[in-house]
Amino acid sequence: VSDQITVAVVGASGYTGAELCRLLLQHPHVKLTGLYARSSAGQPLSKVFPQFAGRLEQVIEPFDADRVEARAVFCALPHGESAPVVAALAARGHVVLDLSADLRLHDAATHETWYGGHAAVPPELRARAVYGLPELHRERLRGASLVAVPGCYPTAAILAATAFLEAELVLPDLIVDAKSGVSGAGRGAALAYHYPEVEGGIRAYKIAGTHRHTPEMEQELGARVTFTPHLVPMSRGILACVYMRPLDPTVPAARYHEALRARWQGEPFVTVLPAGALPDTAHVRGSNRAHVSVAVDERVGRVIALAAIDNLVKGAAGQAVQCLNLAVGLPETLGLDGVAPFP
Amino acid sequence: VSDQITVAVVGASGYTGAELCRLLLQHPHVKLTGLYARSSAGQPLSKVFPQFAGRLEQVIEPFDADRVEARAVFCALPHGESAPVVAALAARGHVVLDLSADLRLHDAATHETWYGGHAAVPPELRARAVYGLPELHRERLRGASLVAVPGCYPTAAILAATAFLEAELVLPDLIVDAKSGVSGAGRGAALAYHYPEVEGGIRAYKIAGTHRHTPEMEQELGARVTFTPHLVPMSRGILACVYMRPLDPTVPAARYHEALRARWQGEPFVTVLPAGALPDTAHVRGSNRAHVSVAVDERVGRVIALAAIDNLVKGAAGQAVQCLNLAVGLPETLGLDGVAPFP
Amino acid sequence: VSDQITVAVVGASGYTGAELCRLLLQHPHVKLTGLYARSSAGQPLSKVFPQFAGRLEQVIEPFDADRVEARAVFCALPHGESAPVVAALAARGHVVLDLSADLRLHDAATHETWYGGHAAVPPELRARAVYGLPELHRERLRGASLVAVPGCYPTAAILAATAFLEAELVLPDLIVDAKSGVSGAGRGAALAYHYPEVEGGIRAYKIAGTHRHTPEMEQELGARVTFTPHLVPMSRGILACVYMRPLDPTVPAARYHEALRARWQGEPFVTVLPAGALPDTAHVRGSNRAHVSVAVDERVGRVIALAAIDNLVKGAAGQAVQCLNLAVGLPETLGLDGVAPFP
Amino acid sequence: VSDQITVAVVGASGYTGAELCRLLLQHPHVKLTGLYARSSAGQPLSKVFPQFAGRLEQVIEPFDADRVEARAVFCALPHGESAPVVAALAARGHVVLDLSADLRLHDAATHETWYGGHAAVPPELRARAVYGLPELHRERLRGASLVAVPGCYPTAAILAATAFLEAELVLPDLIVDAKSGVSGAGRGAALAYHYPEVEGGIRAYKIAGTHRHTPEMEQELGARVTFTPHLVPMSRGILACVYMRPLDPTVPAARYHEALRARWQGEPFVTVLPAGALPDTAHVRGSNRAHVSVAVDERVGRVIALAAIDNLVKGAAGQAVQCLNLAVGLPETLGLDGVAPFP
Repeated sequence: VSDQITVAVVGASGYTGAELCRLLLQHPHVKLTGLYARSSAGQPLSKVFPQFAGRLEQVIEPFDADRVEARAVFCALPHGESAPVVAALAARGHVVLDLSADLRLHDAATHETWYGGHAAVPPELRARAVYGLPELHRERLRGASLVAVPGCYPTAAILAATAFLEAELVLPDLIVDAKSGVSGAGRGAALAYHYPEVEGGIRAYKIAGTHRHTPEMEQELGARVTFTPHLVPMSRGILACVYMRPLDPTVPAARYHEALRARWQGEPFVTVLPAGALPDTAHVRGSNRAHVSVAVDERVGRVIALAAIDNLVKGAAGQAVQCLNLAVGLPETLGLDGVAPFP
Repeated sequence: VSDQITVAVVGASGYTGAELCRLLLQHPHVKLTGLYARSSAGQPLSKVFPQFAGRLEQVIEPFDADRVEARAVFCALPHGESAPVVAALAARGHVVLDLSADLRLHDAATHETWYGGHAAVPPELRARAVYGLPELHRERLRGASLVAVPGCYPTAAILAATAFLEAELVLPDLIVDAKSGVSGAGRGAALAYHYPEVEGGIRAYKIAGTHRHTPEMEQELGARVTFTPHLVPMSRGILACVYMRPLDPTVPAARYHEALRARWQGEPFVTVLPAGALPDTAHVRGSNRAHVSVAVDERVGRVIALAAIDNLVKGAAGQAVQCLNLAVGLPETLGLDGVAPFP
Repeated sequence: VSDQITVAVVGASGYTGAELCRLLLQHPHVKLTGLYARSSAGQPLSKVFPQFAGRLEQVIEPFDADRVEARAVFCALPHGESAPVVAALAARGHVVLDLSADLRLHDAATHETWYGGHAAVPPELRARAVYGLPELHRERLRGASLVAVPGCYPTAAILAATAFLEAELVLPDLIVDAKSGVSGAGRGAALAYHYPEVEGGIRAYKIAGTHRHTPEMEQELGARVTFTPHLVPMSRGILACVYMRPLDPTVPAARYHEALRARWQGEPFVTVLPAGALPDTAHVRGSNRAHVSVAVDERVGRVIALAAIDNLVKGAAGQAVQCLNLAVGLPETLGLDGVAPFP
Repeated sequence: VSDQITVAVVGASGYTGAELCRLLLQHPHVKLTGLYARSSAGQPLSKVFPQFAGRLEQVIEPFDADRVEARAVFCALPHGESAPVVAALAARGHVVLDLSADLRLHDAATHETWYGGHAAVPPELRARAVYGLPELHRERLRGASLVAVPGCYPTAAILAATAFLEAELVLPDLIVDAKSGVSGAGRGAALAYHYPEVEGGIRAYKIAGTHRHTPEMEQELGARVTFTPHLVPMSRGILACVYMRPLDPTVPAARYHEALRARWQGEPFVTVLPAGALPDTAHVRGSNRAHVSVAVDERVGRVIALAAIDNLVKGAAGQAVQCLNLAVGLPETLGLDGVAPFP
């Protein structure tokens, strides 16, 4: 079709890369023109990911910025590796959707503090990059040429907590206790993610201010965050549980639910659950949707907000496609309205 | 759109019903006009299945054949309950896609033997019903008004074994050792499917000629079948492993792979894996695709054919939509080309 | 053997009952003389729980206080059902270990508030009952005749947080974000615990001061608690993550680790992990052990303590056996030193 | 205690090594004097396997045959690596229990065919090694100094099928369709066992006469075997389903059940389930027990025998301890009578 947007995926051999391919294949106005990855270059995607057998037989190529023929390019590379690729693509005029952490933090010093030697991002790139959470920055994303797609945990935490901070109902000092599926750790085999080490157990990791998604949450929420990620025996999904203090303890519980509904009113991918219902990651698995809710513990004066997303979709590939739609002027939900295949 | 096919789902509160809704929502030429179920009548679908929240807020109604306004109706009811509903709908001229077992067996006596008192199916209905496996009966399904959508196990077993029986490479006496996810047992809570009873263990059930999918396999394969179903700690998927004896032990292994490729050449939803590759249900989960392969144990003279499907999609709802497409003259793959969201 | 303690189990058909049988069978100084349950009375235990086939063929009987021949009796009944059974047994002079919630709260009014009409516990029984957490009440448990075995969540939360409250390092106002395996919900089949509804997803439930384990934590910790339980796709295990505020933000992180080590020094079943290590429920699954650790988020001034236990062992049956050992004067660890069968 | 048997474990850093440590710790007449492993030498076992923290703090050492001070030594090394270690230990007079495949096949040529260049086993060692399945070779195991502990799949297949072959009820030509948990693949991280690649799917592997456990089954059963292993999303357990042809199709089904009961009568670790019941690996998980059953498909003339074991216990470490007990003259069940911690 003449009005197809040509797109390419760099980093096609990871879980996020595969998810991008899956979503882009079902997008009615997109044509996938290139798949790039290092280790699996030369192989058909269907060998690396058999779910594409019979559906997409394209061969993965080594990345070469000069040979990319696509209006928009998704970069699903590890942080540090992404920046030079993004710079090369941006210089050649492609719309770039970067799924790494390289451009998410506006402040270069903060980036340096948390990511160390990876700070080799040209300042003008960092300045141009729009943080790709449409629910916060929709207008800036329209027509954007460079998007820093958010991390999976920040997406969940922000969708849970923003409404209450913006409405000045809570103190800007949060605890984010979040639980993630294992695909968040990527496709690289390691003992920590070896099947028998994960099944039937749950554990926290990188707690007490050591996980790199912390500054990203703080930047977008404008609040201090204590972040505790957990690894759950499941492949996909993030559930964020955010603890906040009410600014005024006499505000009734219903007011919080109302604030949540008001904030996300009309958002195509954020569903505020009925009062009393609580989100379950299984209900959003495979979809770009977030389920959110809030409850108030009036006995002790605490507000508890929850959000469930699929880390690979709303937390990565789906959000990137949503940003693409905004960047190139397509309807925002195009290719993204699939319902979770529950169970 | 003026060329939309109106469809309804009876039995919308089960897993197959939900999967039908999910697939029909992403079908570009279908309009869902009615959802019916007994126990959850009066509730919005999104209360019964929260994955639809914000996407489909339709209310489930009690079934009343006179009030169905849809060209085609999917019946996802338990066997025995389905026949009278199907009869009422067929009498009113709807295209009916019956996902129960009530009309699958051509021979009423065989049905009576295996299903007992449920045989109250009018003989003319049984005679009219087309067995809804497009890969076997495509021409009869075009324009069909009554389709008996196959069982999940038979779909997998048939896609694994048919090629070899048709090519007269093997004896018509098979062992089908199949492994299923728990959704095959439906959404009714029972001790056998209580989470702690299933996680971390595997068991066989209804073995040695006691599972009702046996005669269905025998009818479609024209062979005797020893069928052993297993319950696997996973929600979706069926892997069928079929053991056969070669008619001529001197036939080389490559000939079997060739027969498999030849038989499924051009089939939109059956992928013959490259020689040496073996199917994994995770690679077809959530999709209408079947992955098949064959290997020969030349030491002992046995042919081993494997097929992986998603029991709720190619084994139920997806196959039913595929049949709908054929029945009403739409392209067969419409609404069904989604790739499995692996992992 | 002449020095065997005779014991009986009331409520043998639940998961806790089965776990009691498993532990008591491997206890060198115990003889199991009676198994009682209502619905499965008349059946051998091995029919209800096939893991006992060939190992314990005892038949389950309907409970009759007059026919119990055992020095000690474990009551693993639902709250409300337990109190009258406990009263009958206590009146007959048995040592009673009650695993229900009926006697855990010292204050009858608090019990009434949280458990409603179940308060029919004779005040003298409530007064006599010792809260069965040996790590807090060891001396009172020695020779005790009536023990209220703690809930699973409180056990984990208390083992995580006690050290810091006792050392007056933190404010007595806690958040307990806990994650539990599904066996905590018992063996009764229900949609919420149907395998396909649980696999691959995580959800919170009974949040914001609605879960009945809240007052139990508050009683034993002497602190206010916001409690958020979650259901994790695993059969066993509880991980409690407790958030606290330091009383003095200048106290260095090492001081907290030291306090934890000091508090649990010499405890046979509580292991303080090396600094930096974090507990995993898989490492205590099937054992009576708790793994605990602490971290300090100095950026924002929060103390985060974690504890992992097996909800059916240290959170129920194992703890009850530990209490039995103390009550009848046996070495505390007898029958309980098994290592978790990881993986 | 003066009558303690001193034992050591070589290969303590794998799952089988850990399981040996767990079982040996609960063995009343064993003293663990040495733990050996290459990669983790110098670390305490509790660092490699945190489940031992607080229970066994022994440090792992590099293996040196001259420094082993133990009457009996368990070798849990990969095949090929084991033979020289076994030879060194045997030469020094230790009782050796070898859990590798190096000594299981009596025929060196068959070993060479299936294991290739690993055949460097001195012929006299191979001749001396007793195949360590007590249910077949109990008398030869009493006082044995060198035991080749069976593979996990062969143990399950043999316990399922032996009774019928010995009683000459079936043809010596079997199909073994077996399903295994992931711990059978060891603790080495690899993409095939990465959590997201395993959860929610099932696949066969090394089928059609390519899995090395085939000749072991054929040797012990005296029959031809078509073997199909599967990987199941669970950590532990093997379920073997064995298909056989009756020699005389008129023999009634009850005769097979009777043969099974007669064969395993009095066996401490093999439980023949009541007629109609089917084994579940969850019911033997963590225990040394096998659950077996048989059914006959009289319609088509096939005998179907099933066995469930825990691959790490009866399929490896537990069986090795059972062999130790026989070898050194202890009661056979010592340290092994634990019941599966189900669920």
